[in-house]
Amino acid sequence: MASWKDPEIAGVRALLASRQPPPGAAPPTHSERRAGMDAFGDMGSLPAGCRHEPLTANGVKSERVVPLNAVAGRAILYLHGGGYTAGSHRSHRPLVGRLAEAAKAEAIVADYRLGPEARFPAAVDDALAVYRWMLDGGLDAGKIVVAGDSAGGGLTLALALACKEQGLPQPAGLFVISPWADLTQSAHSYRTKAAHDPMINKAGLDTHAQAYLGGLDPRDPLASPVFGDFTGVAPMLIQVGSEETLLGDSLTITDVAGQARVDVRLEVWPEMIHVWHAFGGQLQAARRAIAVAGEWIDRRLA
Amino acid sequence: MASWKDPEIAGVRALLASRQPPPGAAPPTHSERRAGMDAFGDMGSLPAGCRHEPLTANGVKSERVVPLNAVAGRAILYLHGGGYTAGSHRSHRPLVGRLAEAAKAEAIVADYRLGPEARFPAAVDDALAVYRWMLDGGLDAGKIVVAGDSAGGGLTLALALACKEQGLPQPAGLFVISPWADLTQSAHSYRTKAAHDPMINKAGLDTHAQAYLGGLDPRDPLASPVFGDFTGVAPMLIQVGSEETLLGDSLTITDVAGQARVDVRLEVWPEMIHVWHAFGGQLQAARRAIAVAGEWIDRRLA
Repeated sequence: MASWKDPEIAGVRALLASRQPPPGAAPPTHSERRAGMDAFGDMGSLPAGCRHEPLTANGVKSERVVPLNAVAGRAILYLHGGGYTAGSHRSHRPLVGRLAEAAKAEAIVADYRLGPEARFPAAVDDALAVYRWMLDGGLDAGKIVVAGDSAGGGLTLALALACKEQGLPQPAGLFVISPWADLTQSAHSYRTKAAHDPMINKAGLDTHAQAYLGGLDPRDPLASPVFGDFTGVAPMLIQVGSEETLLGDSLTITDVAGQARVDVRLEVWPEMIHVWHAFGGQLQAARRAIAVAGEWIDRRLA
Repeated sequence: MASWKDPEIAGVRALLASRQPPPGAAPPTHSERRAGMDAFGDMGSLPAGCRHEPLTANGVKSERVVPLNAVAGRAILYLHGGGYTAGSHRSHRPLVGRLAEAAKAEAIVADYRLGPEARFPAAVDDALAVYRWMLDGGLDAGKIVVAGDSAGGGLTLALALACKEQGLPQPAGLFVISPWADLTQSAHSYRTKAAHDPMINKAGLDTHAQAYLGGLDPRDPLASPVFGDFTGVAPMLIQVGSEETLLGDSLTITDVAGQARVDVRLEVWPEMIHVWHAFGGQLQAARRAIAVAGEWIDRRLA
C-alpha cells in the first residue's frame, strides 16, 4: 500500500476501515445499505442558507435543493449513486448542496426507482421523466446540466443516450463523478486497483448489476453506456480518483465519446477514491473538485 | 467522411488536401520536410510585441520567445514536434509565441538534435541539457512548465521520466498537445481514425520511428513514455483532437500516469486534428485551446 501525500485521504481511509463489517459477517441487506447511506447523508452539512423541499416530477419523487446564490432559469438534474439499488435525495443532499452552490444553480435530485424492486430500465425511465418535467416547466435544455456519481454517473450518460432515442434536446452538459458505466465489470482497473480501492470491488458490483438487471443484457447501452453511440451528445466533464477500480470506466467513456466527437474533459485526481466528493467535510480535494466542477457547470449554463 | 460542425476545420482540411503530393510521388526527403515546416512557421504571425532571440543552452541551439506580458522568474521549455526528424524553433515560433502570451511566460524553444543524423537518446539528452541550463540559470523547477506537441509531446513526457532517473526536480507541470508517446504505433485509433486523420498515419510514423531509433528498442520508456513509470511525475494537461490516429496515445498516457497517481487532465477536442493549435490564424478552436492551456500553465506557475 502506498503512503499518502494527502494526510486527509489517510484519515478517510481509516474512517472507512473502521466501518467495515467484521470478516465473515453477512453482507448488508438492501434496506440496511439504504439506511446506512441515508445516515451518512444526514451527518453532512449543507452550505449556509441552502434550502431543500420535496416535489414530485412527472410522478417521480424528487427533491429541490436551492443554494442562496442560485441563478434563476437554470438547474442541475442530479442522479445519485448507490449501485442502482440504494441512495436517495437524503444520502446525497450535502454533496448536491455544495455542488449546487459551486455551480450557482438549483438542483433537482431524482429519487429514481431502485433495484431489485424496480429493474432496468426503470431508473432510466424515471430520469427521463424528471428531465421532461424540467423541460415542460419551461426550462431550456441549454440551461440544464445533468450530473451524477457512480451508478448515477452511468445513469447520467444513459440519459444523454436516451434523449437521442427519444428526440429530446441534449442538456448543456454532463458532469459525472466516478461513473459506473460498464455493468459487465470488464475494466482492467478492477485488477490493477483491487488492493487500493477501499469501497468498490468487482464482486460487489456484480451483485448490484444482477439486482438491477435481473437477467437482462448488461451490454444494453442504457445500462452500460460504454457500449453506446455518443455522437451528438452534450459536452462532458468526468472526475475520477486514481485509486478506483472504476477508473477504467472513465477512460473507456472518454475514448468512446471522444472518438464520437463529444467534447470530453477527463480529470484523474491523484490518491482519491470512489466519489471522494462526498467527503466534503474531511477532504480539501473534495472541495476543490466540487469547485472545479461548479465552475465548469456555471460556464456551460452561462 | 463526416460533415463538420466547425466550418473552419473544413477549411483547414481543404488547405491540407491542396498541399498533398500527387499520388505516386516520392515521399519528401528529410531536408524537404524540414524546409516545409520552417516555411509553415514563417507564414504565421507572432503576438504584437513578442520578441525572439537566439541562444545556446548547455551547447544546445535554442531560441527565447518573450511576449510583452511575460512575468519575470518563470518560463516554458518548449519541445517542438516533427517526428523527431524535423521541426525547429522556426517552424513552431507562432504557436510558441501565442502559448507564451497566453501563459504570461517567456519560452525557451530547444532545437534538439534530430534523426536520422542524431539518434535516440540524443533528443532526450538535449532536452535535459536545456532544462538543466534553465535550473542552473537560477530558475526554480516550480517556475518551469515543459510543453510540447506531437513528438515534442512525447519528448516532454520522456524528459519528466528522465528527470526522475537523473535526480532532477520535476517541473511545475507538463502540457502536451497530441503527444506521440508510443513508438510501436499500437493504439487502436490508428485503425478507427485512419480515414479521418489528414496528417498522421502509421506508415509515416513507422518511418520516423525507424529514423530516430535506428535499431534501438521502441519500448524504451524514454522513447515511448507509455511504457514508463510515472510515479512522482508533475501534473499534466493533455489536449488531443477527436480525429487523430494518435488519440490512443493520449488515452494510454492518461491511464498509465493516472494510475501512478499523477494529476492528469485530458481534453478531447471534437473535430480537431493533429496539433490544430498550429492553425491559430485559421481556427478559433486553436486560439481557445491555447487560451485554456495558457490559463492552466499560468496557474501552475503562480
